[in-house]
Amino acid sequence: MSSKLIDLASLTANKRAFQKQYQQYQSQALNLDMTRGKPCPEQLDLANPLLNILSDTDYLDASGVDCRNYGGLSGISEAKTLFSQYLEVSVDEVFIGGNTSLGLMHDIIARAMSHGCTESSTPWASLDKVKFLCPAPGYDRHFAICEHFNIEMITVNLLENGDPDIETIEALVANDHNIKGLWFVPKYGNPSGLSVSDAVVDRLASMECAAADFKIMWDNAYAVHHLTSEQVTIKNLLQSCKESANPNRVFTIASTSKVSFAGAGVAAIGCSADNISWLEQHCSVQTIGSDKLNQLRHVKFFKNLDGIKMHMTKHAAILGPKFDKVQTVLNDKLAGLNIATWSNPKGGYFVNLDVQNGCAKKVVAMAREAGVIMTAAGATFPYQNDPKDCNIRIAPSLPALDDIELAMNILCVCIALVTIDKLSSS
Amino acid sequence: MSSKLIDLASLTANKRAFQKQYQQYQSQALNLDMTRGKPCPEQLDLANPLLNILSDTDYLDASGVDCRNYGGLSGISEAKTLFSQYLEVSVDEVFIGGNTSLGLMHDIIARAMSHGCTESSTPWASLDKVKFLCPAPGYDRHFAICEHFNIEMITVNLLENGDPDIETIEALVANDHNIKGLWFVPKYGNPSGLSVSDAVVDRLASMECAAADFKIMWDNAYAVHHLTSEQVTIKNLLQSCKESANPNRVFTIASTSKVSFAGAGVAAIGCSADNISWLEQHCSVQTIGSDKLNQLRHVKFFKNLDGIKMHMTKHAAILGPKFDKVQTVLNDKLAGLNIATWSNPKGGYFVNLDVQNGCAKKVVAMAREAGVIMTAAGATFPYQNDPKDCNIRIAPSLPALDDIELAMNILCVCIALVTIDKLSSS
Repeated sequence: MSSKLIDLASLTANKRAFQKQYQQYQSQALNLDMTRGKPCPEQLDLANPLLNILSDTDYLDASGVDCRNYGGLSGISEAKTLFSQYLEVSVDEVFIGGNTSLGLMHDIIARAMSHGCTESSTPWASLDKVKFLCPAPGYDRHFAICEHFNIEMITVNLLENGDPDIETIEALVANDHNIKGLWFVPKYGNPSGLSVSDAVVDRLASMECAAADFKIMWDNAYAVHHLTSEQVTIKNLLQSCKESANPNRVFTIASTSKVSFAGAGVAAIGCSADNISWLEQHCSVQTIGSDKLNQLRHVKFFKNLDGIKMHMTKHAAILGPKFDKVQTVLNDKLAGLNIATWSNPKGGYFVNLDVQNGCAKKVVAMAREAGVIMTAAGATFPYQNDPKDCNIRIAPSLPALDDIELAMNILCVCIALVTIDKLSSS
Repeated sequence: MSSKLIDLASLTANKRAFQKQYQQYQSQALNLDMTRGKPCPEQLDLANPLLNILSDTDYLDASGVDCRNYGGLSGISEAKTLFSQYLEVSVDEVFIGGNTSLGLMHDIIARAMSHGCTESSTPWASLDKVKFLCPAPGYDRHFAICEHFNIEMITVNLLENGDPDIETIEALVANDHNIKGLWFVPKYGNPSGLSVSDAVVDRLASMECAAADFKIMWDNAYAVHHLTSEQVTIKNLLQSCKESANPNRVFTIASTSKVSFAGAGVAAIGCSADNISWLEQHCSVQTIGSDKLNQLRHVKFFKNLDGIKMHMTKHAAILGPKFDKVQTVLNDKLAGLNIATWSNPKGGYFVNLDVQNGCAKKVVAMAREAGVIMTAAGATFPYQNDPKDCNIRIAPSLPALDDIELAMNILCVCIALVTIDKLSSS
C-alpha cells in the first residue's frame, strides 16, 4: 500500500458528495459482474470457425487415426506438437487432457494424495501432514484444491516485482519435509498481472527441498495473453529443473480456455518423461482418452504457435480498451488521494487493487449493495483470509466498456467512503 | 460349460487337419483385432452430422447460455432433459460429464476413497479394508479401478440367466461392513450379453447392507444397444432403491460413446438428489464444467430419446450381421462337438465364449500366434484371474465381416486343437 500521506480533511469534505453519488448508483438497481476472468462474447467469436471446422470428410489425424473413435490416451500427435511449442517442451513431454486445466491440476493432487508421486508410492494422504506454499495474492481455485484435500496452506508473500518471496520459500522447503509443493501462476499472474524473474525460476528449480517429491504446480494460464506489444517472456522452469537435476519437480499446465473457447478448449501438461509415465499410468485407469475431435479442431484452426500468437493479438485488441478503461477511472477518481494502489498489467485477465488495510471486505460489500459484484475480498488468499484485508481483484474481460466504466466509478466511490469511515474512526 | 459328452476319438481323428489349417492361417501373417468393444467406422459415420452441426450463429443453449464460455457444472438444461429420458430419472437427478463414463466412475471411487460418501465423510482409504463385489465375467476396466485403489475384489458368479448370484451377494453384504459396493453392467452385460431380472433389481435395492454407504455402480453402458427387434427392458434400480428407502445406494452411469462417437461422446450419471449434491460439491473443485458445446451438438442431433432409439436401429443394422457371422462360424465349426458354449446376445458388444476348463489362455495365445488378437483370457475376471480359465470375450464390432469370419474360423481351430491336447493328456 501507498506510504504517501492521505489528506483526510479534503477527502472528508467530499463525503456528502460521495454519499449522494452512491445513493444515485444504488437507485439504478444495477447488476454488473466483475467477478471472474471470463472471456467476453467478442473474444469467443474470434474462434467461431472451430465450431464447424470438421466435416464428414475431415476427422482423421495426420497419421490416419480416426479421432471419432476410442484411443489416444495422451492426445493426437499434431496436438502434442502444437502444445510442445506452447509449453516449450519436447513432444514426449506433453500430455493432452480434456477441456479443463483445473481438472488436470486437481487430478495431479488427487493422485499424489492417493498414490504418491514418481519419487515415492507413499500416498500423501497417509502422511501426518501435507503442506503447500501459496504465494498470495493468488488463484482461488488452487487454494480450493488444497482445502478440499486437507493440505495445509502456507501463505508466502508475492513481492512487488512479481516474484514470490524466494528467500522465505527456500528456508521453508529446506527444513520441512511435509511441504510437498507450491502453486504459482508465473506469467501475468492471477491477480497480480506480474511475471516471475529468471533468477527466481532458477532458484525454484535448484533449491534444496526436504521433500524429495516436492512439486511445483506451474499454472501458465496466461502464457500468450499479452495486453500490449510489450510481450513478457519467462524462463522455462522445466528446462531449469532438468539442469538442476530435478526434472520431476514441475508440472507446467496450460490450456486454450482463454484462447479458443473457455468451456470447450484443450488443456495440457508439460513435464518430464518420468512424470508423463506417471500420468499415463494413472490416467489409463480413468479414461480411454480425451476428446480427440476437439484436439483436431484446435490444430486445424491454429495450425501452430504462430497461429495462436496471431489470434491472441485479436484478443488484445478487444481486452486492451477494457483494461485501459479501468486505469482511466482509477486514475481519474483515486490518483493523488493516496488511498489505493493498483497494477497496470501487460497481460493476463486481472487488475490487482490494494485499498487501505481493513477496507477490502467493506468495499466489496458496499459495491455489491450498489449492484457491482466483485470477486469476494479475501478470495485471492489461502482460506479466503487476506490478513490485511486490503486486496481486491478486478476482472474486466467480460463486461462491456460502458459497464466497466460504471462499475469502476461505483467501486471508487465505495473505496472513498469506506476509507473515510475507517480513517475518521481510527 | 457344456455337460454333454465330447467325442474325443472323432475330434482327435481330425487333429492333423486342424493343424494343417492352423499352419495355413499362420503363414498368412494376419492381424485381426477382436480385443475391444470399439465401434466400426460405418457406425461412427452415422453420427457425422455432429461434426459440423454448430455454427457461428448456433452455440447458445435453449435458455440463452453461451456454450462456448465457462460455467454449467452439471450440464446444460436440454442435455439434462435428454439424459433424464435416457437414464429414466428426473432432470434434477442428472449430472453430465465429459466424454468418458469410465472417468465418471473412476472419480466416484476416487472421491469415496479420499472423502467418503453422503452417508459418512470417513474416507474409504482410511479404513483397514475396502471390498467390492464383482459379478464375473465382467468388465475389465471396472476391476482395474478397484486394483488401482487397492480395493479387494470378491468374485461373485454371474448366473446363466444374467443375474448376479444374489443369494451370495445378500449373505456377504449383510455381514461385512467392509464391502462397500458392487460393479454391474445390468443390460446386455459385458461380456455376457445378458440382462438382469426385475426380481434381482429389487433385491439389490432392498437388501440389508452392513455398510450404510454401500454403492452399486450400475454401468448401463448398453441401455439402447439392441441387436434385434427383441428389445430387452430392465427395471429402474434408482426407483427401486427409493422405494426401499435406499435412494443413495446407486449411481447409474451411461454415455453416448457407443451411440455417437466413442472418443467424443457425452457421459452422464443418474442418481439421487443427495448424490447429485455430493457430486457437485466435489466436481466444483475439479472443473468449471464439462464441454457444453459437445452437449449441445448431441442435443441438436438426437433431439430426444426417440431420436437416439431411431439412431440405434441403424447401429443394429450394421452390427447384426457381424454378430450373426460369429454365430454362424461357431455353429458351423463347434456345434455338436460339445467343446464350447457361447452366448447369442440380443444386444451389447460381446459374445461370451466358454471353452473347456484350463483352455482359455492357451486358445487366446494360439490365436495370437496366428494373428488373431482376442481380449486377454482372464481379463473378464477380478485380478485377471478366471479360476476355471475357460472364458473368452469376442468383440466383433470393429472388424469387417470377412475379417470376423476369418478370425472366428481361426479361433475355432485353436479351440479344437487346445481341447484335443488337453483331453488327450488328462
